[in-house]
Amino acid sequence: MEYIPSKLLTTAVDNFSKLPGIGRKTALRLVLDLLKRDTSTVNALAESLVNLKKNIKTCRVCGNLSDEETCSICANPRRDRATVCVVENIRDVIAIEQTGTYKGTYHILGGLISPIDGIGPGDLNIPQLSDRIGDGGNVNELIFALSANMEGDTTCFYLSRLFSDKVNKISQIARGVAFGGDLEYTDEVTLARSLETRTVYNA
Amino acid sequence: MEYIPSKLLTTAVDNFSKLPGIGRKTALRLVLDLLKRDTSTVNALAESLVNLKKNIKTCRVCGNLSDEETCSICANPRRDRATVCVVENIRDVIAIEQTGTYKGTYHILGGLISPIDGIGPGDLNIPQLSDRIGDGGNVNELIFALSANMEGDTTCFYLSRLFSDKVNKISQIARGVAFGGDLEYTDEVTLARSLETRTVYNA
Repeated sequence: MEYIPSKLLTTAVDNFSKLPGIGRKTALRLVLDLLKRDTSTVNALAESLVNLKKNIKTCRVCGNLSDEETCSICANPRRDRATVCVVENIRDVIAIEQTGTYKGTYHILGGLISPIDGIGPGDLNIPQLSDRIGDGGNVNELIFALSANMEGDTTCFYLSRLFSDKVNKISQIARGVAFGGDLEYTDEVTLARSLETRTVYNA
Repeated sequence: MEYIPSKLLTTAVDNFSKLPGIGRKTALRLVLDLLKRDTSTVNALAESLVNLKKNIKTCRVCGNLSDEETCSICANPRRDRATVCVVENIRDVIAIEQTGTYKGTYHILGGLISPIDGIGPGDLNIPQLSDRIGDGGNVNELIFALSANMEGDTTCFYLSRLFSDKVNKISQIARGVAFGGDLEYTDEVTLARSLETRTVYNA
């Protein structure tokens, strides 16, 4: 182990380096920087973490993080509850909200079906989605916005089979060449897919 | 600003993103990861930061961080107190201790002289170094291990003038081609310096 001149410092570095992507060198840099700040700044950081962990709730409708029983999106009367966008996690919700164009609601699965990692449908937030859809009529469109990989496709396939006769429309976000993306640097699978699912202008 | 579904989450992200090199996206990733951990893990992190800030001391001899009034290096009777290595900050102490070869003590300046940033000798931990050196005899060798830039050189020059008649030997760590470093990729200044200060085998 490296030399660190203080047990207090070592403990803080140990705890910090448990975070993802934070090695011991980075942890040390962060902790030494914190030491230069006011006590109030350090206490505010510590307090906000404890508070967050203690008081954060999961929206009982969609599984989003929330300060209340129901999250701000599900509670918003201007959001279309008949359109549900199915995503893997909260970071995906944030990414889609960032676009400012989606007016429906979300459903957060909390993961993707992955037999290799031992994650089956039972480990995901699917019963709540079944409850929302009910016997049909509650949800008009289910939009899958899942990762473009094996796990995402498996989950799409499983859920679309499960709900196909209870939902009017099941869709998936487009895969294709990104804006600003060069055709020559786009991988073959994406390019083939974007040709196949091309947008027709004059049909 | 981006959409974040909870005020508690926003506060934690705000506080985290004040750390150096942590943007809002990284802060969000770290905080969401913390939410998946046990309450005890989160509390331990928070507590260790508060504790550290509250109880850490600065060694009254050398300026190192310490749990006691005197740091573990200055308090160690097997360390040579007549040899003092002058460094900019605590990370430098850790780097040198890591080599496992240095048996002297340290003096941490807490910065470098930098007229451009308005940092003069008065802003650094120099009076304590004067106290250690006294009227001569206490310190045999002063080793400068400062950054190889303008600020480092200025500080070296200033300190060596200040203490030249009170210390037997004043030295500076070698600048040169790093181990495993390719000559062709070494910059000219370093290469010129490493030629000039070459080690003589048979003199």
